[in-house]
Amino acid sequence: MIFPIFFTFFLLLSSSHASVQDFCVADYKAPDGPAGYSCKKPAKVTVDDFVYSGLGIAGNTTNIIKAAVTPAFAAQFPGVNGLGISLARLDLAPGGVIPFHTHPGASEVLLVIQGTIIAGFVASDNTPYLKTLKKGDIMVFPQGLLHFQVNGGGTPALAFPSFSSPSPGLQILDFALFKNDLATELIAQTTFLDAAQIKKLKGALGGTN
Amino acid sequence: MIFPIFFTFFLLLSSSHASVQDFCVADYKAPDGPAGYSCKKPAKVTVDDFVYSGLGIAGNTTNIIKAAVTPAFAAQFPGVNGLGISLARLDLAPGGVIPFHTHPGASEVLLVIQGTIIAGFVASDNTPYLKTLKKGDIMVFPQGLLHFQVNGGGTPALAFPSFSSPSPGLQILDFALFKNDLATELIAQTTFLDAAQIKKLKGALGGTN
Amino acid sequence: MIFPIFFTFFLLLSSSHASVQDFCVADYKAPDGPAGYSCKKPAKVTVDDFVYSGLGIAGNTTNIIKAAVTPAFAAQFPGVNGLGISLARLDLAPGGVIPFHTHPGASEVLLVIQGTIIAGFVASDNTPYLKTLKKGDIMVFPQGLLHFQVNGGGTPALAFPSFSSPSPGLQILDFALFKNDLATELIAQTTFLDAAQIKKLKGALGGTN
Amino acid sequence: MIFPIFFTFFLLLSSSHASVQDFCVADYKAPDGPAGYSCKKPAKVTVDDFVYSGLGIAGNTTNIIKAAVTPAFAAQFPGVNGLGISLARLDLAPGGVIPFHTHPGASEVLLVIQGTIIAGFVASDNTPYLKTLKKGDIMVFPQGLLHFQVNGGGTPALAFPSFSSPSPGLQILDFALFKNDLATELIAQTTFLDAAQIKKLKGALGGTN
Amino acid sequence: MIFPIFFTFFLLLSSSHASVQDFCVADYKAPDGPAGYSCKKPAKVTVDDFVYSGLGIAGNTTNIIKAAVTPAFAAQFPGVNGLGISLARLDLAPGGVIPFHTHPGASEVLLVIQGTIIAGFVASDNTPYLKTLKKGDIMVFPQGLLHFQVNGGGTPALAFPSFSSPSPGLQILDFALFKNDLATELIAQTTFLDAAQIKKLKGALGGTN
Amino acid sequence: MIFPIFFTFFLLLSSSHASVQDFCVADYKAPDGPAGYSCKKPAKVTVDDFVYSGLGIAGNTTNIIKAAVTPAFAAQFPGVNGLGISLARLDLAPGGVIPFHTHPGASEVLLVIQGTIIAGFVASDNTPYLKTLKKGDIMVFPQGLLHFQVNGGGTPALAFPSFSSPSPGLQILDFALFKNDLATELIAQTTFLDAAQIKKLKGALGGTN
Repeated sequence: MIFPIFFTFFLLLSSSHASVQDFCVADYKAPDGPAGYSCKKPAKVTVDDFVYSGLGIAGNTTNIIKAAVTPAFAAQFPGVNGLGISLARLDLAPGGVIPFHTHPGASEVLLVIQGTIIAGFVASDNTPYLKTLKKGDIMVFPQGLLHFQVNGGGTPALAFPSFSSPSPGLQILDFALFKNDLATELIAQTTFLDAAQIKKLKGALGGTN
Repeated sequence: MIFPIFFTFFLLLSSSHASVQDFCVADYKAPDGPAGYSCKKPAKVTVDDFVYSGLGIAGNTTNIIKAAVTPAFAAQFPGVNGLGISLARLDLAPGGVIPFHTHPGASEVLLVIQGTIIAGFVASDNTPYLKTLKKGDIMVFPQGLLHFQVNGGGTPALAFPSFSSPSPGLQILDFALFKNDLATELIAQTTFLDAAQIKKLKGALGGTN
Repeated sequence: MIFPIFFTFFLLLSSSHASVQDFCVADYKAPDGPAGYSCKKPAKVTVDDFVYSGLGIAGNTTNIIKAAVTPAFAAQFPGVNGLGISLARLDLAPGGVIPFHTHPGASEVLLVIQGTIIAGFVASDNTPYLKTLKKGDIMVFPQGLLHFQVNGGGTPALAFPSFSSPSPGLQILDFALFKNDLATELIAQTTFLDAAQIKKLKGALGGTN
Repeated sequence: MIFPIFFTFFLLLSSSHASVQDFCVADYKAPDGPAGYSCKKPAKVTVDDFVYSGLGIAGNTTNIIKAAVTPAFAAQFPGVNGLGISLARLDLAPGGVIPFHTHPGASEVLLVIQGTIIAGFVASDNTPYLKTLKKGDIMVFPQGLLHFQVNGGGTPALAFPSFSSPSPGLQILDFALFKNDLATELIAQTTFLDAAQIKKLKGALGGTN
Repeated sequence: MIFPIFFTFFLLLSSSHASVQDFCVADYKAPDGPAGYSCKKPAKVTVDDFVYSGLGIAGNTTNIIKAAVTPAFAAQFPGVNGLGISLARLDLAPGGVIPFHTHPGASEVLLVIQGTIIAGFVASDNTPYLKTLKKGDIMVFPQGLLHFQVNGGGTPALAFPSFSSPSPGLQILDFALFKNDLATELIAQTTFLDAAQIKKLKGALGGTN
Repeated sequence: MIFPIFFTFFLLLSSSHASVQDFCVADYKAPDGPAGYSCKKPAKVTVDDFVYSGLGIAGNTTNIIKAAVTPAFAAQFPGVNGLGISLARLDLAPGGVIPFHTHPGASEVLLVIQGTIIAGFVASDNTPYLKTLKKGDIMVFPQGLLHFQVNGGGTPALAFPSFSSPSPGLQILDFALFKNDLATELIAQTTFLDAAQIKKLKGALGGTN
């Protein structure tokens, strides 16, 4: 049995323009748009665009929150551009905490690989959903809701969050409020916090005003 | 010129099943799903499903924040179900404030009709975007980002936010943190706020623990 | 309490490529695509990209329809690019009318701020949905359906339509039919209108043939 | 080589709830929602849900427009529910015409199988795009824009439109305007047509008022 | 009755930036992104961008599978870019076959115009759905599932598949497995096929290793 | 400072219908639709709907492929319904293999936690993308493309795939072809495989005909 050059189809396809198909590896040098980065020319795509090794390295947790988050979003991992998914790595030393934050553009599923993590989110009706997660547990945090993770044991914890977007975004509450030049008075007015409390956290986080 | 019953088309269509077309007015008694409420039977739909008068009435601002928000989301206004849009009304008495909040499911455009409003949002990189809005101004708050509105003058202010979803959601920061039974210690750990500050706001907002 | 440079996360993020996150302010000079305009470089974005003042100015209604529509779509208001929402302003002098039209790409919610407006749309099954709207009323026009607005009183009316897309499009029926060079005979054949009627409207609207 | 019952996977899957996967054949008796009809129970699905023979039968063109449209939308063809696509059949006798209409919920590609068809659409800027299509030609009509098809020869024409939605909708201009009880005066005001013209078409199409 | 230049609206619109509306004809020379090709400048768009005549020509079936597929995807037909739909032509000589394949990015509806076609797809639970299609029949193949078409009679068959995406993609099973340099041993391990079988097909299709 | 019951907003919201917001935990007893399962009544939702522990248990790999896949899709894990994401667990004993398969409804990112995995996918143009993944590596498999995973070392491997859909689907090539009653002759015709090879695999996998 012999198959000569046979599909008219393939002749047509190969004589056509580079097609928008299969994947769209991020080309960081071309313009980006609401749907993501522009696509790398197919001829320049290699398997390494689809593989990312940065999550294999523990983040540095010798900091005040004893925690580190290492993202593999479209901005770091070009292969996920346009594909509706991304990952990150979360290291929590004993006592470590990822303070209240949201992902404006994605839901998250957290997978615990090592240690114990107390995780929680708060729904729009202010109900908190809290759980102590053990190795192998997963927990979903619906898009845009405030949530946190805390090391729940005396040993280092390791977890991997997955996101429903290649660019989930991350807004950390304390940073949004205190790590900029928003006037203390305005923050007080819009959070009901005391001015002294605000100034204390601005000082700690490097905010001004 | 005479047009007898002419389109085979219409005979077919009318002999078919109630079709999923044009609109899907919310039927609050049937199950809802990820895309919204079930659709009311076409025969039961009237023009009043597409009109809502609740935003014509000023909200009651005789409260501690001197402000009121009146929603016309899919849960109140059945005609917008499935159509990717909804509105609300915002009344701000002098000194009124809508404290920091997010809409997990929608971007917002605020339209100022009366008075002056100081509005702002904070981006993921912690940059604040602030503006004093006058009558006729509009400002967009991208999906999921923390934002606020404050009456910027000595007279009542009136504004109408539009949302890119029939169910934008609303998470008010202070309520999410303090108006529930989250343990003070856990909040302290995940917000860096002092316990005294937390207890004070829990007391004011009706939270416990 | 002191927070040294602490999140590995942020070091990583800031050393990365400009990310597709939060918002995508329109860059009118770069290519656009099916999802909207390309994004402005983050460093060039200012609060003024998110605020638009053009709707604060009454449109000029000294014209034959005694009406004016002022859009704040992505083409005018760069901040809404990619965010699924836009607004416009509608001025109707006494006797003013926005003739039958559609928005091919969006549903609309009309908010009446002043005066009285008779609004209506026609569903696919030819049922008209009509309502006289008063100040504060809102009415939804599902995507793509023919609808109109008419000043229903003796005083000027003001309304603000919101749209479920940053680029809703607008196709005005009379303009589509008569304000171009479509042959009168072809229009007659595809609308059942009399040739004399077509020629009269072509003359009024500047059409030819 | 022998493969015993081997995947833990499949045991788990089969012990689970009927899954939302692969397809969602319309169950016309359960509630529908913004995303389409509810899904038939998997056990009741047969190959005949995925096959439709109604387009093999010529529509009856012995009517005033000498044309017939036969739809295979989700309301007729349950297998396309939720799959983003549907078809129809278009028969045009000599002199036949499908008058100006829109599909509020889909773009259309028309495929000409027999005869000659003059087709056209009008863009938002009122530019008409017209073409005489021969056998084998395809033409795309972007979502929501006014378009028409006319038999361009002396022989019957046959074409098949495809749509980018299982429920594209169909709004025929003349029917929307004249085949209902909209007041003649209101139509005149919102279309600029003469009252006599309106009454004539109301009479022909069965409208009142 | 005279209509002077009247809509403030149009002055605004025409003084604005080229808008993202109505359609986005593919510009093959600009970058593409996850949502498709960049848009051609409106001024360069003509009706020929919306019409494609390539499907009017029979594909060359003098090959081993006695079949030909001619695509009219966004890469060939610029007018469908961003519109969620595309078409193709399928010619099957007597004995012709389109072997098992998937479209990773779209559902398909096949329309039989001439001859008889045995078509089938296999669902995730391994159930095959098979049907012999006659002229005028349509069959839907849900997104991503393996399917095939075989000429079911002694005469040439002609069919037109429609797709729910402008870039549906096409992965032909035999080509994916055998028309490249994947090691025979690896294929054997991941398909359970015998090495001799693999080598035979690699030889026929031009694969190596 | 005291905050009496203050937001008009909340009174309105609480007097309204159960809203479509935040999340839509699967109610397996109500109808499902194209967008997923119906939502559980908010009052019945608990934190356990958002947590799943099934991935903490190693799958049973004492089978012919020495591998096991344990899904946490919407059918098993109700909290991810409607949220665009799901996970699974993959156990590969030494010599284990997940044969060629596709996910018709999702892209996948595989995260390697233990051992070494040789993974690969084939693009539409038949190019294979292969990589040996070590602990901590992630690799993305674009939606709908054929891919496989093989234990690349002499020790057990553990990995967690994430998916861009709560119901990604899974079509295993060998099962789709051989584990059903498709006629050997038809399979031969549509795969180019020899009848003997087909019969051998049908025998091994439990297929007939």
